[in-house]
Amino acid sequence: MAVPVWSVDPRTGKQREQVATEATAQEVDAAVRAAAAALPALADRSVRSRLLRGAAGLLEESGERIIAAADAETALGVPRLTGELARTAYQLRAFAEVVDEGGYLDVIIDHADPDAKPLPRPDLRRFKIPLGVVAVYAASNFPLAFSVPGGDTASALAAGCPVVVKAHPDHPATSELCADVLRRAAVAAGLPADTVVLVHGFQAGVELVRHPLVSGAGFTGSIPGGRALFDAAAARPRPIPFHGELGSLNPVVVTEAAAAERAEQIGAGLAGSFTLGNGQFCTKPGLVLAPSGADGDRLVTALTEAASGAAAGVLLDSRMRDNFLKGAAARTALPGVTAPVVPGDGGEHVVQPGFVTVEAADLTEQGAYDLLLEECFGPLTVVVRYGSGDDLAAVLDRLPGNLTATAHLGADEADQDGGQAAALLARLTGLAGRVLVNGWPTGVAVAPAQHHGGPYPATTSTSTSVGGTAIERWLRPVAFQDTPPALLPPELRDGNPLGVPRKVDGVREVPAS
Amino acid sequence: MAVPVWSVDPRTGKQREQVATEATAQEVDAAVRAAAAALPALADRSVRSRLLRGAAGLLEESGERIIAAADAETALGVPRLTGELARTAYQLRAFAEVVDEGGYLDVIIDHADPDAKPLPRPDLRRFKIPLGVVAVYAASNFPLAFSVPGGDTASALAAGCPVVVKAHPDHPATSELCADVLRRAAVAAGLPADTVVLVHGFQAGVELVRHPLVSGAGFTGSIPGGRALFDAAAARPRPIPFHGELGSLNPVVVTEAAAAERAEQIGAGLAGSFTLGNGQFCTKPGLVLAPSGADGDRLVTALTEAASGAAAGVLLDSRMRDNFLKGAAARTALPGVTAPVVPGDGGEHVVQPGFVTVEAADLTEQGAYDLLLEECFGPLTVVVRYGSGDDLAAVLDRLPGNLTATAHLGADEADQDGGQAAALLARLTGLAGRVLVNGWPTGVAVAPAQHHGGPYPATTSTSTSVGGTAIERWLRPVAFQDTPPALLPPELRDGNPLGVPRKVDGVREVPAS
Repeated sequence: MAVPVWSVDPRTGKQREQVATEATAQEVDAAVRAAAAALPALADRSVRSRLLRGAAGLLEESGERIIAAADAETALGVPRLTGELARTAYQLRAFAEVVDEGGYLDVIIDHADPDAKPLPRPDLRRFKIPLGVVAVYAASNFPLAFSVPGGDTASALAAGCPVVVKAHPDHPATSELCADVLRRAAVAAGLPADTVVLVHGFQAGVELVRHPLVSGAGFTGSIPGGRALFDAAAARPRPIPFHGELGSLNPVVVTEAAAAERAEQIGAGLAGSFTLGNGQFCTKPGLVLAPSGADGDRLVTALTEAASGAAAGVLLDSRMRDNFLKGAAARTALPGVTAPVVPGDGGEHVVQPGFVTVEAADLTEQGAYDLLLEECFGPLTVVVRYGSGDDLAAVLDRLPGNLTATAHLGADEADQDGGQAAALLARLTGLAGRVLVNGWPTGVAVAPAQHHGGPYPATTSTSTSVGGTAIERWLRPVAFQDTPPALLPPELRDGNPLGVPRKVDGVREVPAS
Repeated sequence: MAVPVWSVDPRTGKQREQVATEATAQEVDAAVRAAAAALPALADRSVRSRLLRGAAGLLEESGERIIAAADAETALGVPRLTGELARTAYQLRAFAEVVDEGGYLDVIIDHADPDAKPLPRPDLRRFKIPLGVVAVYAASNFPLAFSVPGGDTASALAAGCPVVVKAHPDHPATSELCADVLRRAAVAAGLPADTVVLVHGFQAGVELVRHPLVSGAGFTGSIPGGRALFDAAAARPRPIPFHGELGSLNPVVVTEAAAAERAEQIGAGLAGSFTLGNGQFCTKPGLVLAPSGADGDRLVTALTEAASGAAAGVLLDSRMRDNFLKGAAARTALPGVTAPVVPGDGGEHVVQPGFVTVEAADLTEQGAYDLLLEECFGPLTVVVRYGSGDDLAAVLDRLPGNLTATAHLGADEADQDGGQAAALLARLTGLAGRVLVNGWPTGVAVAPAQHHGGPYPATTSTSTSVGGTAIERWLRPVAFQDTPPALLPPELRDGNPLGVPRKVDGVREVPAS
């Protein structure tokens, strides 16, 4: 019995159309085998770079249709989705540049040295090769940039790995359109269409991570879902790397000096950040440490004003809306917690943004308030009022790992080398994969230096899912010992015929570009 | 009740002395907390490089005593242990160079770009920071180079991570002497002695991988032991990276042409390699594919002659000897398997090297012969006679992951770009982390381009435990966004005050050295 996959409009809760059926175990097996057969064809770097650029072009060509489908399925709105599509196309092209440059191959060459100490040394040449088929688990909240044509797929293809994507059930029609773009781009680049294969269905996702021919997985989603798949990946007879981005509170610390200088600006900025995309960003600031006293009060007042004006919005699906309503109610019901702007029901299919405040002392010990240290997906944030540095430190000590951590500093603090602000930044660095000063964590720039990851549960590995180094997740090194030139991959031959960055006998070789 | 830890002489089976007691759960907790307290002091790269160089010097100073203890506990012999100590000291110094150079920090800087497409870009600067306390599980077979002062410890310290080593029970006295060297080196470098802490006991090892303050683990040992610890690392509330090197067959393929040209030389070389260190190398060639026919017969004859002359030797402990005798008997008893030189009992406390031969056809389907596809620790190898390329391919298809894979090629094959030898090498590359041509896998050069790892079960991750890139295991990236110069780590500041290799706005910056 084929289980239908429906596209649903979250603005009405109504089914739009049946898009596909859930993949059976046999269909998952066929998908993985088809993708695996594409592996040899992907060995050529120039073909991969053509694939990625071609996919970017086709995505833009089909942009209007894809954005319309995505808006109908996610309610994220055409402007936001137009930006997301541009970002996704940019990301595909950025990975094409990574492939062309070749630095990611991490080539190291040590020529034979018969006089080496303590022993004569053979000729050793090392670079990185693709892992094999990669399973990508698409996210709900970015139907393009963290979904079928998103960073996991782009980086895996860049590495030379065929991809089987498990579509997110919140946007199956968008997923089909995007898979079609990628498959057409593959064919146009001279590759098999099955270089990218799409499957639907929860159980299909479980089969996928267990499939013997799957060699790695990328995931963006919830802690329970991601952890279950991580556990399955680790429990395989042959465990595979599972790069999951699961959840993050994204703490923000506002110092006394920052509040004194810019309470209103920070309050308004926070409102903009926690309500952005209806609070459905993995980098939403979910816990904000603001000082007690008059300056902190001004911050809360500004936040109250700005958040009161925030429009009610549609979440990605009704289950998320139910969870948000439950989560908001449980948090506001805690004794001592106040809700200057009450988060919750905003009418049929919509939710109202809001925030709560709590005293730091309530959070410093395990107990009922632990709920406030858990991510609540949607437009809600928690403002913690701290009276002293000790209070602040005690709350930070209780935080799990995060994608981001932010400090808002006073002007003098920001200029002082080795002072209290430096100590605060060191503390925040221990908690997160990205540290920001005087900014907001929502918005993750696609850039070579980006790191979108962090201590568990932010990610299940030390890797990033955004930025050029995301390619590293899908590679493994191989060293060739005393291998005749004719049998070496060209990147490893003397003379550097393909002009890739290398380290040769300890000296970095940067080819002229 | 304290459980005593004895040093045992494997040449006699007699207890030499009580060295320590097994660490209780409380003692493991204290060890980890003491190590964790050393983390901030390790932040300075120059201190770490001093520590590593100092440790190398002290290791050499105490060399005679350490080698004597190691020989008494492992029976590996003074010449081999003298070489291993030199290698271990070299490795410590090599990691000091890695720390000094700073390339491992993988610095990427993207300056703010308000005109960037598709969106203005903030200032982003990324490098890598230490994970935290690392647990090292020492190996039996290299009491120095893969034990207390070995590559896992050296690379973790280089990364800035304090280390708690779980000693191998086969050489507790050596472990104590080496831990003392490392702790003295720490103090001499101005670091806490507890930068390195040693614990003994099986249960202590289990406690260690579960300890909340342990952030990563390195392991060299058996598949069952390594997998159990890997599983424990993955099952933690906060999973940690577990870099285990577990087991490897190290297949060797001898082509028809190679056998025709050099049967005698290859047979003799193989005998030297599989009996080296009494067959107790993780890179021992355990499965050798040799052609059927007269040239292959010459190879077997040469191997028989050389192996018959190999001396009986003492294994590392009596349990290993028992396992070797059982494993050798089970292999030689298989129908159709012949043993030109019978491996097995060599007299009290010693074993006799030997090898078996089998037809490729017996190995191409699951069944009783699967035993021949499992590593047998000790001086035994399996020669598989193949009649055709299909036979060869069918056997290779059944192999698990390996540390190494070797091809012996004819002179013409080695010169031919894109021919059969290239296809064979591509096949072997899929099976292993190091690919050798016309050599032997025993002997793992400590070099920047080395890769000592491979598909599971060779290693549980894609990393290496030998060579400069072994440091990557103990780091995680962090990106700083819009962070004022005074608050940036010096490696990330404009002007590159510490002169580390960086990539800035897409351009590789190689400081003059």
